[in-house]
Amino acid sequence: MFEGPIQDLIGELSRLPGIGPKSAQRIAFYLLDADPAEVKSLADAIVTAKRSVRFCQVCFNVTEDETCRICRDARRDRHQICVVEESKDVVAVERTREYRGLYHVLGGAISPIDNRGPGDLHIRELIQRLDDGTVTEIIVATNPNTEGEVTATYLARLLGPLGLTVSRLASGLPVGGDLEYADEITLGRAFAGRRSVGE
Amino acid sequence: MFEGPIQDLIGELSRLPGIGPKSAQRIAFYLLDADPAEVKSLADAIVTAKRSVRFCQVCFNVTEDETCRICRDARRDRHQICVVEESKDVVAVERTREYRGLYHVLGGAISPIDNRGPGDLHIRELIQRLDDGTVTEIIVATNPNTEGEVTATYLARLLGPLGLTVSRLASGLPVGGDLEYADEITLGRAFAGRRSVGE
Repeated sequence: MFEGPIQDLIGELSRLPGIGPKSAQRIAFYLLDADPAEVKSLADAIVTAKRSVRFCQVCFNVTEDETCRICRDARRDRHQICVVEESKDVVAVERTREYRGLYHVLGGAISPIDNRGPGDLHIRELIQRLDDGTVTEIIVATNPNTEGEVTATYLARLLGPLGLTVSRLASGLPVGGDLEYADEITLGRAFAGRRSVGE
Repeated sequence: MFEGPIQDLIGELSRLPGIGPKSAQRIAFYLLDADPAEVKSLADAIVTAKRSVRFCQVCFNVTEDETCRICRDARRDRHQICVVEESKDVVAVERTREYRGLYHVLGGAISPIDNRGPGDLHIRELIQRLDDGTVTEIIVATNPNTEGEVTATYLARLLGPLGLTVSRLASGLPVGGDLEYADEITLGRAFAGRRSVGE
């Protein structure tokens, strides 16, 4: 309905995840009204990120260098590796400030429906990291959905025989959540994983 | 929490309207995974739109040229002007396919809270367009909120003495809506504007 470049911009914005035609239009008009410097800095940030972001050669987290900030950090505990699906999961775990070990980003989860098997994930590279015997514990923090569970089970079977401790994040009720609104599977997990209050 | 350029990109995206930190992160990672050509075409669309989009010298709708597509279209009825707040409202009205006249984009509405008075809108230019006597009807299609109503009332008082027909879009229940969920003001307007069924 718009002419040339505005329609092009709305079209491009609509292709982004979570952006429908209405949001795209709103963002497009916001950009037309915005300060040219702000618009340029957005366009530059897109191009720069795409050009300069690489994947850590050790753990496949996003980085600008050969290896990521966490792998380079000498204060991190090198006996633990937390295995996650995506780089954004690293950020989520880091925010908890509960974990001081290393990470390994698989690049997704096993999903037959998307035609993605173990060979498509960075599992071979994870096994190689275990070669020197420094790592003693693997914490599998894949998502608590079908694909994540399948991947966790696969890794547990693969890594168990190597004499490592392999654990999985606890499933249960979200803190601050309401029991009444919990789905039956989450509530079932919360029961199965119940802990003594004195523990 | 991320390093350099990714964090910059997330930061830039978060400044867009309706994009929170979570959406910004999701879009940033989508762009990192996306085809470089697609990413480039998004960045180019932003820069191009910002550079080439101007405002129609007659009606202030967005355009690439001196005047917009609608003002240039000889098939449009030059006796009617539909007054709207923003260019996106032109698109909304055009989608109805009910209106074949011209438009005038005010560039907002009168809003003392935002320190925006009649002098900050393209009202002077609207009056100039009426000089040659071609226009006989003004349809005020400002938003059905306080600012839009104030602007409509102001325009009606200003234009009424010029001997023009000045009308306002009808307020009432949205088609496909549910009476039960209508707010009391909308329902009140729907009563006040009720029409005989045989009409």
